Amino acid sequence: MHKELIVQKYGGSSVANVERIQKVAQRVVNYHKKGFELVIVVSALGDTTDELIHLADKINAEPSEREMDMLLSTGEQISVALLAMAIHKLGAQAISFTGAQVGIITDSSHTRARIIKINADKIKEELKKARIVIVAGFQGVTLNQDITTLGRGGSDLTAVALAKELAADSCEIYTDVEGIYTTDPRIEPKARKIEEITYDEMLEMASLGAQVMQARSIEVAKKFNVPLHVRSSFTINPGTMIIKEVKMMEDVVVSGITLNKNQAKITLCGVPDKPGVAVKLFKDLAMSGVSVDMIVQNVSHTRLTDISFTITKGDRAKASKITKMVAKKIGSSDVLIDEDIARVSIVGVGMKSHHGVAAKMFGIMAENKINIEMISTSDISISCIIKKKFAEKAVKKLHKEFGLDKRG
Amino acid sequence: MHKELIVQKYGGSSVANVERIQKVAQRVVNYHKKGFELVIVVSALGDTTDELIHLADKINAEPSEREMDMLLSTGEQISVALLAMAIHKLGAQAISFTGAQVGIITDSSHTRARIIKINADKIKEELKKARIVIVAGFQGVTLNQDITTLGRGGSDLTAVALAKELAADSCEIYTDVEGIYTTDPRIEPKARKIEEITYDEMLEMASLGAQVMQARSIEVAKKFNVPLHVRSSFTINPGTMIIKEVKMMEDVVVSGITLNKNQAKITLCGVPDKPGVAVKLFKDLAMSGVSVDMIVQNVSHTRLTDISFTITKGDRAKASKITKMVAKKIGSSDVLIDEDIARVSIVGVGMKSHHGVAAKMFGIMAENKINIEMISTSDISISCIIKKKFAEKAVKKLHKEFGLDKRG
Repeated sequence: MHKELIVQKYGGSSVANVERIQKVAQRVVNYHKKGFELVIVVSALGDTTDELIHLADKINAEPSEREMDMLLSTGEQISVALLAMAIHKLGAQAISFTGAQVGIITDSSHTRARIIKINADKIKEELKKARIVIVAGFQGVTLNQDITTLGRGGSDLTAVALAKELAADSCEIYTDVEGIYTTDPRIEPKARKIEEITYDEMLEMASLGAQVMQARSIEVAKKFNVPLHVRSSFTINPGTMIIKEVKMMEDVVVSGITLNKNQAKITLCGVPDKPGVAVKLFKDLAMSGVSVDMIVQNVSHTRLTDISFTITKGDRAKASKITKMVAKKIGSSDVLIDEDIARVSIVGVGMKSHHGVAAKMFGIMAENKINIEMISTSDISISCIIKKKFAEKAVKKLHKEFGLDKRG
Repeated sequence: MHKELIVQKYGGSSVANVERIQKVAQRVVNYHKKGFELVIVVSALGDTTDELIHLADKINAEPSEREMDMLLSTGEQISVALLAMAIHKLGAQAISFTGAQVGIITDSSHTRARIIKINADKIKEELKKARIVIVAGFQGVTLNQDITTLGRGGSDLTAVALAKELAADSCEIYTDVEGIYTTDPRIEPKARKIEEITYDEMLEMASLGAQVMQARSIEVAKKFNVPLHVRSSFTINPGTMIIKEVKMMEDVVVSGITLNKNQAKITLCGVPDKPGVAVKLFKDLAMSGVSVDMIVQNVSHTRLTDISFTITKGDRAKASKITKMVAKKIGSSDVLIDEDIARVSIVGVGMKSHHGVAAKMFGIMAENKINIEMISTSDISISCIIKKKFAEKAVKKLHKEFGLDKRG
């Protein structure tokens, strides 16, 4: 008889201390007793990774990326060993592996390596022995046997890649929230857990500020059509399924609303309205690693115009310095910096087939006297920059008017 | 031109914190600048190993040895990465490796694995690139890619084995003392650092209580004639050379004096003086893992005799239980336990060619009114069990009378 194979990934908060490791072990053993084959991917305990980074920083502020991977990969190695011990304590069979040991082969881009291939023979062998297989997340190894790490959200990627390679029936991502919500429940208590969401919507939400999963793992899951189940390690409730197509009874236009208050707006005033200026500015910004989100160039009534763009706050100093240099060069009158903004976005694949969604969003904002400063749209999302003080109000109104607090 | 190759091993106290890691890095870089090829073996930072053991213990009091090795090997992996970063900071080239990465192949006796072979190609390759090679001590890997650890003193063993495999010109063991002393300087302030000592003497001293190095590494060094230099990482002073033969101007009879206060004496009284009783007792003790040090059976004037033996205090409960069971079976009158004892030993290869050393030792004890309760001798050592209160006095008197505080 074919046994169902589940890949389960437990994040750092799920294994933050001895008690939580024991709880994860109990959950895993319960699944095993039900007859599932299990591959468990684990992150480093709680803040271990941050502590190791801090230790390295005291020794060398610009550590070699190879050595950083050597250092950080120990975090997950500790987790897998402890989880195996906790499972043994409950009387079940389990064996732990590092990324290198199970043949997760990556390129040599240390600290952000890409998985090239996985040789899953060892895992299959152990599954045949009815053992629970525990794999260190976030890490791999080059063909030259150098240890690598996969960058932020790397453990999710390990789980997705293993689920694909092993043709798992399911890939469960355990975290400290119950799933993906229509919006942040701390802002709108009426926010609902979404039962099903498409890869594309989840990707859009991740890039717009939802922090449950990194875009990268979702992209890989989408590419190989690995169904993801995002759920909490603290409850037995089902979470959110991230899948290719959602078949809903109703016609859902907007699936979720995201809010990002970590941006700043920079405006370069009095720019000569001729080609080349914007090119120069955004080239310089890109060259110095500043990632620009939205760009608006005002319609020009005179020979002069304004260019506004948004960046994450962390890049503020760098971006303002570069903009001021460009301003000086072109004889521009002023550079304005506004940190008092927020980006509110609505996301939904339904937008593709529905007209007037943008108009409805703008209408809701207008009715509530919320001025829109910038707009940006994609196939399945619409984002507005507004004053920060209106952020929560905007989220609540949009959540209500698009019917997100009723459905389900 | 042939460059001299040095293997240096730094223990946990030498890399206990950021500042000490930086000091080790500075020392290593200084050697590198002088033109030496360097292979550095490092232990886990300070108390890391104990902390990991404590963590495991909270999860499973009887952890799988394979998982224990998975867990503990992270300690050294952290050390090598941090030391590499510290060396980079000083502008030198260095690269770190786990035991598995440099091909330290062991058997699969987890937590006490034996090195089967070392494939040193990778190290040689990196040395050719003029890089300082840093290797995680205490660990290896089975042919099946399972991570193993080498047991207590394992990092010393890694260093010795690498020195042998690479035909190193020298193997330096860095610790928190300046070398091997004629006796414990905390007992006899006139104790002198020994410049040179033979493997055999060092083995004897290690087994009799000197704690600088584990006997196992010295045995391997002896087997392959790897000269060891035991020295402090906190000074530039030369330490003690452990070598095959010591060529001294003088004829040294006694090289060092050791003291062990961690023993207990058990006496089984009123034993029928016939074959088989002692056999039964010591077989039972051995079966339950109690290691017996000295044994004395009194000369019998009647049909009954006493058997006394010493054990380490940790085995006291187990040993007394077994002895009492044997006593009951043979109808013996009593079992006495004495923890108020100490073992004082003199060690020296010179004893082989000198007569009267034992007589001199016993004479010194008698002159100082120190009663000897038990005696045991080997080719190059003589040990006496005395009352604990006389321990320090005995060490001082022997140190003086055998001329140890004068030489050098």
